[in-house]
Amino acid sequence: MTYCVAMRLSSGLVFVSDSRTNAGVDHISTFRKLHVFHQSDERVLVIQSAGNLATTQSIISLLHRRCVDDERENLLNVKSMYDAASLLGDTVREVIARDSGANQGGNTDFSCNLLLGGQIKGEGLRLFHVYPQGNFIEATHDTPYFQIGESKYGKPIIDRVLNFETPLDQAMQCALISMDSTLRSNLSVGLPLDVMTYPTHSFSAAQQHRITETHPYFDMIRKGWGEGLLSIFSQLPPLKLDE
Amino acid sequence: MTYCVAMRLSSGLVFVSDSRTNAGVDHISTFRKLHVFHQSDERVLVIQSAGNLATTQSIISLLHRRCVDDERENLLNVKSMYDAASLLGDTVREVIARDSGANQGGNTDFSCNLLLGGQIKGEGLRLFHVYPQGNFIEATHDTPYFQIGESKYGKPIIDRVLNFETPLDQAMQCALISMDSTLRSNLSVGLPLDVMTYPTHSFSAAQQHRITETHPYFDMIRKGWGEGLLSIFSQLPPLKLDE
Repeated sequence: MTYCVAMRLSSGLVFVSDSRTNAGVDHISTFRKLHVFHQSDERVLVIQSAGNLATTQSIISLLHRRCVDDERENLLNVKSMYDAASLLGDTVREVIARDSGANQGGNTDFSCNLLLGGQIKGEGLRLFHVYPQGNFIEATHDTPYFQIGESKYGKPIIDRVLNFETPLDQAMQCALISMDSTLRSNLSVGLPLDVMTYPTHSFSAAQQHRITETHPYFDMIRKGWGEGLLSIFSQLPPLKLDE
Repeated sequence: MTYCVAMRLSSGLVFVSDSRTNAGVDHISTFRKLHVFHQSDERVLVIQSAGNLATTQSIISLLHRRCVDDERENLLNVKSMYDAASLLGDTVREVIARDSGANQGGNTDFSCNLLLGGQIKGEGLRLFHVYPQGNFIEATHDTPYFQIGESKYGKPIIDRVLNFETPLDQAMQCALISMDSTLRSNLSVGLPLDVMTYPTHSFSAAQQHRITETHPYFDMIRKGWGEGLLSIFSQLPPLKLDE
């Protein structure tokens, strides 16, 4: 499995992805699930992927390859993020149709889920969740984040902390803690993490980091959060169930 | 859906169940999912249920009805908790076979998951998870809790706080917070809660409570926990992703 979360806030975008892929419990590998398409000072598009690795790798490869062909619509020349989401959806359909077409898959699940966030000059920030069917939904003021993969373990903390006005740094902390909760409870999600923040109107893809086991800040907030939880837990009022 | 958690600790057992059942989003009702079989000073058996409501209600009805028939094996005369789990597994198989046998179900999922915990004189505490297939696993010192239903939202807090030596009151607080996290993130889990603690060797089913929206203690720890989380969150060291 996988866990990816993306947030669209007034001050920018936040992306956090794990990098574990597994087929059963034997085939465990590390693959990057955060992909950036960037045109200096004009657009930054970020795609996060969960699901069948053959499908998601093909999608990203085709999208990259087509970026050098200016004759056809591609992620570096589409006019809006909506068009980018639509193009991504088409590519999802194309790859899944190709791979599942020969009916040699048995019960293979070729599907995938993708998050697409970014900004194209002339527009604000936008964030989409593209489904295996190629259709998509967009994050709004009320629902400023999307998750794909093993989303449930890390959802409660986001639901408590995040809103559209949360500053970018705090949102990244929240995403890292959401990821930590998931890492602790589910073996199929694993380090390293690929993380990125995109400040509104920056058109820069510079704020990308890879977080490994030994990353000092991640280690510090994991410990701080864990100890903090135990400390509030120990300060809860004594149990009293009789009303 | 449903969320139930049961814990088997050195000092006793803890059970917390929600009471929401739903078929789609329209058919939402309240049904008790925590069922007690009790013989004074001799045995206490607690069953929690998740899954198809027709299946789980039939299982509980049959188990109760058979308790008055001393000629056959029933939950009030089996010699050990292992035999009780085995009997429960048989009843699961019986009901699912009956209900799915006529092939009128289409794609209906008749399955259910059950937790069975308790103590029969002469034995220690035991806790089992009975699967839809009727087989079962038992909680151990290393894994002192089981969850059924919407288990993921509420798992991280248990993984952080609980171990076999956790006192009974703290374990109940932990279960209530795990439930609160689930209630906040998943609409298919809802109040009121049915909760019970069973102190080792008490052979008493007296410590049962129903927790509604207005329960003062639950309300207090929900607030205390939420505020505590926000306060540790605000005390995290400032974001620093460059190593």
